[in-house]
Amino acid sequence: MEITFIGAGNVAWHLAPALENAGHHVNEVVSRQLSHARQLVSNTLYDARPRSDFNLAQSVSQLFILTVPDDALPDVCARLVLPEGAIVVHTSGTRSLGDLTQLMQVYSDVPVHTGVFYPLQTFSRQQSLLDFEEIPLCIEAADPETESQLVALGQEISSIVYLVDSAERRVLHLAAVFACNFTNHLFAIAKGLTDAHDLEFDLLKPLIRETFRKGMAAADPATVQTGPARRGDQKTIDTHLDMLRHQPRLQAIYDLLTASIRAGEKG
Amino acid sequence: MEITFIGAGNVAWHLAPALENAGHHVNEVVSRQLSHARQLVSNTLYDARPRSDFNLAQSVSQLFILTVPDDALPDVCARLVLPEGAIVVHTSGTRSLGDLTQLMQVYSDVPVHTGVFYPLQTFSRQQSLLDFEEIPLCIEAADPETESQLVALGQEISSIVYLVDSAERRVLHLAAVFACNFTNHLFAIAKGLTDAHDLEFDLLKPLIRETFRKGMAAADPATVQTGPARRGDQKTIDTHLDMLRHQPRLQAIYDLLTASIRAGEKG
Repeated sequence: MEITFIGAGNVAWHLAPALENAGHHVNEVVSRQLSHARQLVSNTLYDARPRSDFNLAQSVSQLFILTVPDDALPDVCARLVLPEGAIVVHTSGTRSLGDLTQLMQVYSDVPVHTGVFYPLQTFSRQQSLLDFEEIPLCIEAADPETESQLVALGQEISSIVYLVDSAERRVLHLAAVFACNFTNHLFAIAKGLTDAHDLEFDLLKPLIRETFRKGMAAADPATVQTGPARRGDQKTIDTHLDMLRHQPRLQAIYDLLTASIRAGEKG
Repeated sequence: MEITFIGAGNVAWHLAPALENAGHHVNEVVSRQLSHARQLVSNTLYDARPRSDFNLAQSVSQLFILTVPDDALPDVCARLVLPEGAIVVHTSGTRSLGDLTQLMQVYSDVPVHTGVFYPLQTFSRQQSLLDFEEIPLCIEAADPETESQLVALGQEISSIVYLVDSAERRVLHLAAVFACNFTNHLFAIAKGLTDAHDLEFDLLKPLIRETFRKGMAAADPATVQTGPARRGDQKTIDTHLDMLRHQPRLQAIYDLLTASIRAGEKG
């Protein structure tokens, strides 16, 4: 397949070479900032052409992968000119397929096929290229033929390909915010607490590692919950709340999460 | 060293055999419920004697390790009769050394040495025995000689032995509640959210694994924070809050953690 990437950010940085490794050809990388497209091409791709022009009417690609920020999607779609019959997909956890289909209906002069090709992973340019084999790909398409083509493409790079509709993808994304974004912030809070008392954050890492291992190994992480909230150890809870008296938001976070654990709350 | 365990719970289950593996001898295991002491002895120890009697005046042990729940400490100390000159330590993250010293001054008829021998790890009986080599041991003692003895003992089973005073240990424990107990609860919430929509929680595991790996590899987890809060993506945040409208506490947790990330808050 001939493929064009629109956007040269973190997702493109990992997905584009993965598709080339599977035998496809990335033909162009389009970015508003040509230097970004150039950087991606020179670092990870075979002979793609960096461009900053969104008029792709003459492109030989069959698949156009949008890896732009969610907020930029409407503006990018407004500028995009695609060849007739192209498949255009976004890679967003939150944007619905309907959003993209509608934008294309408004802005494209020719009929195109729309879909979603969402890798459920966090990407950053700094790290070495991720192996997609273990990355879940969530696929959705507006028509059955596009769906089969995207599923087939997905299966060439990953062993975990699911059909996930927009409502389901939104739930996965919300769950990921709790399990990943918020979790990382709790690590940052813990680091801040140890820093403030000249203690080494590294002391906590074996415990964090074991917590993570247990939580992932359990059929349900709730069954391996430990700590003062779980034990109903009010004396320790009160001590901790008192230690946080000068940090009202941290105190409120402690209080709410404790109440939530005690209530055995689920999502 | 001849060692007595008082308490036959999760900590004893892992610490007692680790000390025997290092060449020490666990002489007795005392538990209010004799069956608990028996179970620990028969499963993990060489020839310790299970007991339910707290009068240990005739014990040949030099070290008495309290692995009872924090709340039970005063009551256990009130019943405990120790030989003169014994070293008695607790293994708690939250109880101060002063608590134990004071309890002993009140209840012991003979002078004893007090200390803390706190392994910064989460233990459960179900799992296979943990290797203490990588578990940080936080040591504190009321006198220098006891401190040296506890440090020497700690170094025989772990490569990470720190002198940590009671105030510092309390901070470590608070940080651990954020980084471990609360983190596990966020996993449970994510599992609940996927369950409620018949989605597989396993889909999120590669992302959780990568988040954990990145957070632990970074000098400061705050520098690898991602997600809608970090990006200031208010549209996604509003969508997520709306999705949680029937779960007011989860909504409040989402709201607070989002505000905390946006404020770049540290502990």
